[in-house]
Amino acid sequence: MICEILSVGTELLMGQIANTDAQYISKRLSELGINVYRHTTVGDNPDRVKLALNEALGRSDLVITTGGLGPTEDDLTKEMVAEYFGLKSVLHQPSYDALMARMTRLHPDKPVTANNLKQAYFPEGARIMPNLCGTAPGCIVTHSGKSVAVLPGPPREMRDMFDRELAPFLSEKTGIVIHSRFLRIFGVGESRVETILLDLFHLGQPTLALYCGVGEVQARITAALAKGEDPAPVLDPVEAEIRNRLGDAVYGEGSDSTLESTIVKELTRLEKTVCFAESCTGGMLASMIVNCPGASKVLNESYITYSNESKRRLTGVASDTLSRFGAVSERCAIEMAQGARVRSASDYGVSVTGVAGPDGGSEDKPVGTVYIAISTAKNTTARKYEFIGDRAWIRKLCCAHALNELRLTLLQGE
Amino acid sequence: MICEILSVGTELLMGQIANTDAQYISKRLSELGINVYRHTTVGDNPDRVKLALNEALGRSDLVITTGGLGPTEDDLTKEMVAEYFGLKSVLHQPSYDALMARMTRLHPDKPVTANNLKQAYFPEGARIMPNLCGTAPGCIVTHSGKSVAVLPGPPREMRDMFDRELAPFLSEKTGIVIHSRFLRIFGVGESRVETILLDLFHLGQPTLALYCGVGEVQARITAALAKGEDPAPVLDPVEAEIRNRLGDAVYGEGSDSTLESTIVKELTRLEKTVCFAESCTGGMLASMIVNCPGASKVLNESYITYSNESKRRLTGVASDTLSRFGAVSERCAIEMAQGARVRSASDYGVSVTGVAGPDGGSEDKPVGTVYIAISTAKNTTARKYEFIGDRAWIRKLCCAHALNELRLTLLQGE
Repeated sequence: MICEILSVGTELLMGQIANTDAQYISKRLSELGINVYRHTTVGDNPDRVKLALNEALGRSDLVITTGGLGPTEDDLTKEMVAEYFGLKSVLHQPSYDALMARMTRLHPDKPVTANNLKQAYFPEGARIMPNLCGTAPGCIVTHSGKSVAVLPGPPREMRDMFDRELAPFLSEKTGIVIHSRFLRIFGVGESRVETILLDLFHLGQPTLALYCGVGEVQARITAALAKGEDPAPVLDPVEAEIRNRLGDAVYGEGSDSTLESTIVKELTRLEKTVCFAESCTGGMLASMIVNCPGASKVLNESYITYSNESKRRLTGVASDTLSRFGAVSERCAIEMAQGARVRSASDYGVSVTGVAGPDGGSEDKPVGTVYIAISTAKNTTARKYEFIGDRAWIRKLCCAHALNELRLTLLQGE
Repeated sequence: MICEILSVGTELLMGQIANTDAQYISKRLSELGINVYRHTTVGDNPDRVKLALNEALGRSDLVITTGGLGPTEDDLTKEMVAEYFGLKSVLHQPSYDALMARMTRLHPDKPVTANNLKQAYFPEGARIMPNLCGTAPGCIVTHSGKSVAVLPGPPREMRDMFDRELAPFLSEKTGIVIHSRFLRIFGVGESRVETILLDLFHLGQPTLALYCGVGEVQARITAALAKGEDPAPVLDPVEAEIRNRLGDAVYGEGSDSTLESTIVKELTRLEKTVCFAESCTGGMLASMIVNCPGASKVLNESYITYSNESKRRLTGVASDTLSRFGAVSERCAIEMAQGARVRSASDYGVSVTGVAGPDGGSEDKPVGTVYIAISTAKNTTARKYEFIGDRAWIRKLCCAHALNELRLTLLQGE
């Protein structure tokens, strides 16, 4: 079944609100195995609503509209749908009664206007969808092999009506269930991942798509199956193949899994702790760990060592190191990571020291030069990075890469 | 000038992200006096991109596209624009050089693929818009009395390119210049701000709008004036009136001004320093300060004291305090703030200790119970908060309120 979403509302075209209705409906339709081919937004203007509705119905089996259902003059989605199919608008008595009861209760002193009653009229033969969160009911009009579902614009009302009324109607029609898996990938760029997985994009079933995050890539494997069909035989081989080709770069599964949650989970399992010595990231790394519930099992304390003096005092970096190599150096990163581990009596120490900009860069160490070190009981190693971006972005990349290095260290069982 | 926005991206039709690009562009165009008649979203499919582009250009003078600019096979917006106007795709040498430099710097060991180079080709005669936040540049193609502006999809890249490159181009065309001022307000809720400023919403010129942030409200005063007209006589009186009515709650001006940048500026002016002792915020507070350029003048070091033991050892909280009142208590917050100030030899100490959830709450101290203390050479005081929200939201509110308390302390000259 091919579907389009038609959103009606001048406030969308003015940018006063984002079209979260279209996102919500799209996500739910994708789960129901219904393909959305287009979103269209037009203002509250009869000619433009009519034109957009004509076009959408010309291309698809199902059009879902949001907005233009209210009591005002320029709310005319239902009227345009009736006109399209050549249907009369008729009064729906239960909606009329519910509307009267609601209006009288909310505004006992105000007369119910004719405008308000407009909300109880529907195209002849429409299936009515009551609105439990607001005044305007929605409806489904099926005619000449096409369906139009008319939903209200306010997100709370729309979502409730979609889930309670429209979703069951559609699921009945399609008999299809969607199964998705997310793989999270770190350390290989998007275009490189695409090249490595190129042939897997043309399997037909399942489909594969890539999304970008902060220094990471997410791969989504999706299968649209008949109700009751087992997704494992379709998804498992492709997932295995991706893991096989990308190896350790695949760090997690599921849209909720993050580098930090992966690390908190793994450290908890190992009953180990970590401590950070952060210069340019200034606490962001520790904060990412602390944002995960259960962080208290894996982090007791952590140091923000921004000045040279604090690097010396809190993590024991040698004065000689600072004067000979500077704070942004392999040697300093190594001593910071060791100091963080030893002084906090943690199992792992992780340090970040670098030039986040906009000032502080030099020919030798331009903005974006960063050293990340990982210290274990056996070994401490540092790696140099050269990031590109503004201060905030460089700091985020520092955190993502530091977490990834820690993850790889844990994987190696060190 | 009539405009349409065409968004390209299967992830939008799948509902994986909301189309915030269309909202941002619409808002900015509305300020520039350009009417947006339609938003259209299609997937990464050549035929459907082409059809939608044909339709949009048939109806309007200006089409702004987002998405489909990346290095992968199904990124084809530019190609479709070239095809529409019958233009060749030609290499843009500066983009090619910038791309090669970036790729080589980011991935010195990996070959640059042909896919990547696609991003340096543009329709012949296009005006190139460099991408300072990512790899894919955008462009403006003007042909047969129509213009198409091609922007990247990732919001960060798109917004930067719109503001830096496209807005001035469009402003030149319309002759209208938008002047805005942002006032940042903390400590008074949105509906209360609205009530206090009610009459100022109906001035016509300038217009006033409110936006919500983390625990804060932003007021935007906007005037649309002819080029060369002085905005001060229009904006000054309204700004003065708002400041007069809201007093100290107005903490800053400008969309870049934040609580943390206000504090860094003020501490720098006073030549004072701050140190934090963070429990549930876990470094986020320090990180917000460090995210401001010039933070090294006001912060030397900071402590993340997550365990009881670390509160004792790093900030000198008495064992007796922990056993009698617990870590989430006024007394503990006070000792943490004092300890942070004294041990770091800073002028101000700020502490946060609380229950961020989802676990750890009790009848006495439910999730959301937080103590924030501020320590100066003269005085240390703590305040209790009861926040509502999930872990991440509570942690953000902690930081915003801690920064605001520090700001008010600095204002009082303590």
